[in-house]
Amino acid sequence: MLTPQNEDYPRWYQDVVAKAELADNGPVRGTMVIRPYAYAMWERMQAEVDARIKATGARNAYFPLFIPESYLRREAEHVEGFSPELAVVTHGGGKELDEPVVVRPTSETVINSYFAKWVQSYRDLPLLINQWANVVRWELRPRLFLRTSEFLWQEGHTAHATAADAAAYAERILRDVYEDFMVNVLAIPVLTGRKTARERFAGAVNTLTCEGMMGDGKALQLGTSHELGQNFARAFDITFSDEDGGQSHVWQTSWGASTRMLGGLIMAHGDDAGLRLPPQLAPIQVVVLLVRAEGGAGERAAGLVAELTAAGVRAELDDRVDVSFGRRSVDWELKGVPVRVEVGPRDLAKGSVTLVRRDTGDKTGIPAGEVAPRVTAALTEAQAALLDGARRRQEERTVDVSTVEEATEAARSGFARLSWSAVGEEGETRLAEQGITVRCLRRADGSLPVTGDEADLVAVVGRAY
Amino acid sequence: MLTPQNEDYPRWYQDVVAKAELADNGPVRGTMVIRPYAYAMWERMQAEVDARIKATGARNAYFPLFIPESYLRREAEHVEGFSPELAVVTHGGGKELDEPVVVRPTSETVINSYFAKWVQSYRDLPLLINQWANVVRWELRPRLFLRTSEFLWQEGHTAHATAADAAAYAERILRDVYEDFMVNVLAIPVLTGRKTARERFAGAVNTLTCEGMMGDGKALQLGTSHELGQNFARAFDITFSDEDGGQSHVWQTSWGASTRMLGGLIMAHGDDAGLRLPPQLAPIQVVVLLVRAEGGAGERAAGLVAELTAAGVRAELDDRVDVSFGRRSVDWELKGVPVRVEVGPRDLAKGSVTLVRRDTGDKTGIPAGEVAPRVTAALTEAQAALLDGARRRQEERTVDVSTVEEATEAARSGFARLSWSAVGEEGETRLAEQGITVRCLRRADGSLPVTGDEADLVAVVGRAY
Repeated sequence: MLTPQNEDYPRWYQDVVAKAELADNGPVRGTMVIRPYAYAMWERMQAEVDARIKATGARNAYFPLFIPESYLRREAEHVEGFSPELAVVTHGGGKELDEPVVVRPTSETVINSYFAKWVQSYRDLPLLINQWANVVRWELRPRLFLRTSEFLWQEGHTAHATAADAAAYAERILRDVYEDFMVNVLAIPVLTGRKTARERFAGAVNTLTCEGMMGDGKALQLGTSHELGQNFARAFDITFSDEDGGQSHVWQTSWGASTRMLGGLIMAHGDDAGLRLPPQLAPIQVVVLLVRAEGGAGERAAGLVAELTAAGVRAELDDRVDVSFGRRSVDWELKGVPVRVEVGPRDLAKGSVTLVRRDTGDKTGIPAGEVAPRVTAALTEAQAALLDGARRRQEERTVDVSTVEEATEAARSGFARLSWSAVGEEGETRLAEQGITVRCLRRADGSLPVTGDEADLVAVVGRAY
Repeated sequence: MLTPQNEDYPRWYQDVVAKAELADNGPVRGTMVIRPYAYAMWERMQAEVDARIKATGARNAYFPLFIPESYLRREAEHVEGFSPELAVVTHGGGKELDEPVVVRPTSETVINSYFAKWVQSYRDLPLLINQWANVVRWELRPRLFLRTSEFLWQEGHTAHATAADAAAYAERILRDVYEDFMVNVLAIPVLTGRKTARERFAGAVNTLTCEGMMGDGKALQLGTSHELGQNFARAFDITFSDEDGGQSHVWQTSWGASTRMLGGLIMAHGDDAGLRLPPQLAPIQVVVLLVRAEGGAGERAAGLVAELTAAGVRAELDDRVDVSFGRRSVDWELKGVPVRVEVGPRDLAKGSVTLVRRDTGDKTGIPAGEVAPRVTAALTEAQAALLDGARRRQEERTVDVSTVEEATEAARSGFARLSWSAVGEEGETRLAEQGITVRCLRRADGSLPVTGDEADLVAVVGRAY
């Protein structure tokens, strides 16, 4: 049904996206339609990420889609980075516009023009704003979820009184929002680290990243948190009066995570039978599958769904007994629902039902009276097992090397770890010629390098989406 | 501080929007920045409306922002209606596009091109889809929240096997989603009815509407639900095979409500001191206002916030004792927080605190040990009182008349009710010359006319935003 992963991984990905009814290509090149099942996953991602963002003290707001072209030009690196990807509106309301407007590729420029108005005094700081929005970056080689001309994301923008406060907040977002969500909800054991200057966000002085390893050993950047220094503060003149009455420019951060995470979710856990969703994220955690309706099985199956729902489990009933049981099972596997409970008259007569784990394929007969606790336990185990499996693969496919040549070889199947001093900007250029990038720089103990810390860094390199 | 309503109502509106920090004008004409306090209200609107939409069986999805120009032309009335308001992207990725794309003014055309693919058989029906998105309609006379070139909304799109099923669903959305939400959460006693042909959505065969009366007696259309007949089904060739194997076009609905509801919320309840938010919607339902920190009042105030939060109340502490008590009170009034609890050492010494209702201004001393139940009761009362007040105003300002001339006179201060047969299309044109519109057609008993029912209808006419 699906192309096997080891035969053609990109084709497997396309097959899963189409057959699990996750997304379609839009009519305009590079755009996408997110279908209800994938959108339900996005809603769960939004809820989990939003709660973590709010816990850091940030508040949501909404800024316009359209940005005057002149705004982008104010920060030199920023406009240079985004110019090739812009969509430009030249006509509005039946007339040619005096000044063309761009469709936001990201909102630093428009948001900072308001920060300049809203920030007056140190009492207004820190100013912590987040928005959920669509952005447009014209994409020549689109892939659903991974690279699309329009995507959905959250983008946070903050202003602080000191560089240290901004740096601490950027790290807090990386750790308490992105890493925590990705590890504990998505079950993806992301690597955190700093981007090299070459890979940095256009306009940032430091970019922190969460990198996941996909099923084919390639990296996917899943979320980034930037220190912007005072670059935008100078470009947009965002100043505040400090406690002594002096005027200073603010220090800033910005950070984002997008619908690209849906691509990461598919590729981090999927297998030849389809998706494998971590229970914390799954819109449907359990499907109760009615085998045949006889012998009171129909009533019992419906009752189990009610029982599971009451126990706080996202459960759904599949009582389409006119469709073959095998076809329905394959479809729920394809959709990655973590646990199936099969209810049939024969088992029921013996007081039992069958519990099937999607992640392992294990089938267990369990007493019909213990479904809720057994399902809850299976969900907890499946969540941990998916994280463990992804962690094991990442460890197996990460090798320590000494030279750029060895790293190039190792990046065929996974990540290579080597001293950043053995790479440097010159080595980074050579890697790039082979389609390999430095995914992040870390300290030898795996911790995040502090700003300005350049000695003894380890580079993790690989191919990436 | 605010311009009084009876001096200059539009100016009062602008003042509230600016001073309560609800929104700013965007840099591109007609666009807006929704600031955190107003966005928090929008998030509550989204949560309440979304839950009601899902309860009708619809699922959320996401369709692209960009629509090929050619798609809009497929439905003749639709393109005619929207052409003057379109924003057009002519350049993408540094090049001129082969075919210009429009920024969606609404998504019928793009969504229906997918419905044509997804709907094959009667088993696929009804197909019930909703999306939360931004849309763009170029606006020459923008007003924050009420008319903006970009706004946020939800738009639902459905396909059904029969005209009757589509009609019933369109009415269900009007009643169970919009009217229920507007009456019970927003506390706005909306009139429901049918639009005249002149006021109908471009491409619809029937438009149902919820109309609210604002503080100045003018109407605001707060949500609409359309029967599209088979117009888009024919334009996009959406057919299904029925149980007998025959092919038929589907019957459709679409329906939407937007950030315009924020404008309605301001104008339905606001007074000369600012917003008055219904507790069901208010992001902050209660502020505990510390008068002075002495005598354990600080600890007690913080404790009360914890107590209220534990009781399920959205409570916030204001312990900024370095800002004058008067100024803080005025600010919370401006922000429309439904209940204030004032905690000061003098009252506390007598075991009491002061409860202040925003809607009535009533101040009551209550025992400090009974804050949670008293606040909960006050919130319930305030919710009912705001709805009652709005209903009373609407009744007082709606008069029964017999002629278009009398209706024109009555519409100076509110709504006029008269027989639709005394108006007709000719009368509607005369009213339009005076800036007056038929807001909706209803049956004499106030109920919704069924499709095709033209006899004995009552027209409600008024000025509108």
